[in-house]
Amino acid sequence: MSALQNDRFLRALLRQPVDRTPVWMMRQAGRYLPEYKATRKHAGSFMDLCRNKELACEVTLQPLERFPLDAAILFSDILTIPDAMGLGLRFETGEGPVFDKPIRSLADAKKLFVPDMGTDLSYVMDAVSTIRQNLNGQVPLIGFSGSPWTLATYMVEGRSSKTYSIIKAMMYDQPATLHHILDVLANSTIDYLNAQIESGAQAVQIFDTWGGVLTPRDYKEFSLNYMAKIIAGLTRENDGRKVPVILFTKSGGQWLEDMAATGCDALGLDWTTDINDARARVGDKVALQGNMDPSILYASPERIRQEVAIILEKFGKGTGHIFNLGHGIHPEVNPEHAGEFIRAVTELSGKYH
Amino acid sequence: MSALQNDRFLRALLRQPVDRTPVWMMRQAGRYLPEYKATRKHAGSFMDLCRNKELACEVTLQPLERFPLDAAILFSDILTIPDAMGLGLRFETGEGPVFDKPIRSLADAKKLFVPDMGTDLSYVMDAVSTIRQNLNGQVPLIGFSGSPWTLATYMVEGRSSKTYSIIKAMMYDQPATLHHILDVLANSTIDYLNAQIESGAQAVQIFDTWGGVLTPRDYKEFSLNYMAKIIAGLTRENDGRKVPVILFTKSGGQWLEDMAATGCDALGLDWTTDINDARARVGDKVALQGNMDPSILYASPERIRQEVAIILEKFGKGTGHIFNLGHGIHPEVNPEHAGEFIRAVTELSGKYH
Repeated sequence: MSALQNDRFLRALLRQPVDRTPVWMMRQAGRYLPEYKATRKHAGSFMDLCRNKELACEVTLQPLERFPLDAAILFSDILTIPDAMGLGLRFETGEGPVFDKPIRSLADAKKLFVPDMGTDLSYVMDAVSTIRQNLNGQVPLIGFSGSPWTLATYMVEGRSSKTYSIIKAMMYDQPATLHHILDVLANSTIDYLNAQIESGAQAVQIFDTWGGVLTPRDYKEFSLNYMAKIIAGLTRENDGRKVPVILFTKSGGQWLEDMAATGCDALGLDWTTDINDARARVGDKVALQGNMDPSILYASPERIRQEVAIILEKFGKGTGHIFNLGHGIHPEVNPEHAGEFIRAVTELSGKYH
Repeated sequence: MSALQNDRFLRALLRQPVDRTPVWMMRQAGRYLPEYKATRKHAGSFMDLCRNKELACEVTLQPLERFPLDAAILFSDILTIPDAMGLGLRFETGEGPVFDKPIRSLADAKKLFVPDMGTDLSYVMDAVSTIRQNLNGQVPLIGFSGSPWTLATYMVEGRSSKTYSIIKAMMYDQPATLHHILDVLANSTIDYLNAQIESGAQAVQIFDTWGGVLTPRDYKEFSLNYMAKIIAGLTRENDGRKVPVILFTKSGGQWLEDMAATGCDALGLDWTTDINDARARVGDKVALQGNMDPSILYASPERIRQEVAIILEKFGKGTGHIFNLGHGIHPEVNPEHAGEFIRAVTELSGKYH
C-alpha cells in the first residue's frame, strides 16, 4: 500500500495536532453529482452499483476529483448486512428500501445468521480494497455500517416508517426477540467492520440514523449498548496506525455523554446542538465531527462561507474537529455550493491550529 | 357559563395542588376512534368538518364520552390561519396539506394580512363557543394554534417537506422576507388565540411541530422569538381565572430553558427527554406536560400501565405534571389501549399528590 499523503483526518479524530481542520461530507458520493448519476444510469440497480467493485470505486473517487476532501468513504449501503441475511432487499422508487421477508417473530429472528464476510459480503471487501488501491495514499478511506437498531427498524418494519409502530410494539412486548435480532446484527457488524479494516479501511463510522426516535432509556438499551459492543469488538489497528471509530446518532444531541463513553474516538453531531456546547460536554473524551445544517448548501455561496466561519469559531482553537455536514448532503444541492463549503473550510480553518 | 366541575388540568398547569395527575391526549379526537371516522365520513372534507360547529363539537366531545379525560381540545387544524390568508389550502390523500399559492418572495409575503377573526375565522370561534356550551363545565376547553415557524414551513414549501430546502434557503438568503412572514403570523396568532379565549377557551397550546429541525440559533431567532411575542400578546384571563399557555416544540428537548423563559406556564415534552431531568432543569419555572411515547399504545395493556407507572415515578411527588403523550396519538391505535393509558393515570397517580 502507498504511504498516506494526507493524514489530517486521522490525526484530528485522535485529537492530534493538524495544520487545518479536515473536511468531508456524508453522502459525498451521491446524487447531487451529475457524474454519479451518469455512472448510476449504466450500472443497473442501486445494489448492482454497490456490488460492482470498479463502479463502486469510480463513484467513491468522483467527489475527490472535484473537491480537496480529506477523506474518502466507501460507496455502499447500510442494508448490505440484512440483504446478506436473505431478507429480500429491494429499492422501490419513491418508497426507499423494502424487505420482502420482514422479521416479525422470535421464530423469524432465530433464523437470522451472521453472514460470511468472505462469501456473502465479499463484494464489499473487494470494493474496499479496490478503492484503497486506487486512492493510492491520497487520503484515508472510511468504512462504515448502520447501527444494529437502525438496521433492525428496516428489517422489522419491512420498509421506512414514520411511527416505528411494529418495531416499537416488539420492543415493548417482546424485548427478548428484539434483543436477539440486535445481538446477531452486532456480531455481524463486528465481523463486517473488521473485514473492511482488514481490506484497507483506515477509519470506520457507525450510522445510527434512527436512534433518536427512542426514549433515553430505550436508546441506551436497544441502540447504544449494541454500538458499544461493536466498538469493543473491532480491530483497532491497520498498517501500524490506530483505526478511529466515529459514532453518529442523528438527533442524539441529548445523549452525547453516554455516546462518548462507548470507547469511540469521535462523535458525529447533527446541527441541533451547538458544537461549542458539545465540546464543553465531551471534548475532553472524543473528537467532534460536524455539524453544518446540510440545508445551508441551498443558500448562496457567501452565506455558506459565513456559516463555515461561524462553526469554526464556535469550535474554537485546537484539534479534535472534523468539519462535516450534520447529515448527508441533499440530492438537489448544486455541486458548486458543496465546493464552496469545502473550499471555505480549507481556507478559513488554518488560524485555529 | 356553567361552573367548572373538574379543574385539575388548569390547577396543575399553574402548579397548584391537585388530587391526582390530570391527563389528556394530543389528537384525542381523531382517526383512532371509529365514531370519529363515522362523523368524518358524512362531513365532507376535513376542512368542512372543521367549519361545521356542530360536527366539530361532536368530534371534540367523542373521546370524553369514552374516557375520563381532564380536558377537551378544540377540534380544528393548525392551518386555519394561512387558509384564511387565501393561500388555497387543500388536503391531498397520502400527501397531507398542500397550498396552491405558496409564499416564495418578499412580494408574496407583503400580500399577507392578519385575517379578521369575526369574519374570516368566525367558524373557529363558533366551534369554540358551541363546544364550551356543550361541555357544560365538565372539563376545561383547550384552544390552540400552530407556531409561526411551523405554519411558515407549509406556506413557503407549499406542502410537507423532509428537508425544508425552500424555507431554509429563504431563512439563510432572505431573512427579512421570512421575518415579515413570521411577524404577520405572530400578529394573526395573537388575535386568533385571544378570540378563542374570548369565545371560551380556558387554556391554549402553541404547537411548534417543526422547530426541532433548526439549529439552536435559528430556533431562537425564527421560532421561539415569535412564540414569545404571541405569549406576551395574549389575554391571560377568562371567567376570572388565569388562562395558562402551553408551549410544545417537538424535538425541543435541548432548549427547555429557553422555552421556559418565554412566559409560558407549561412545556410540552416529547419522549426523548426524561421528565425527571426536565423537571430538574425547568420545574421551578413551568409545569410539564407529557411525555409517553405514543408508540407504547401499540403494546399490551399491561405494558402500557407499567410505562405510566414509570413516568409518574420519574416526575415524582407534587403538582406541575399534566400526563399526555409526547406527540399526537397515532391513527391505528386500538381505542381500548388509549383507555388503558388514561385509566392507569387516573388510578396510579393519586399517591404522588
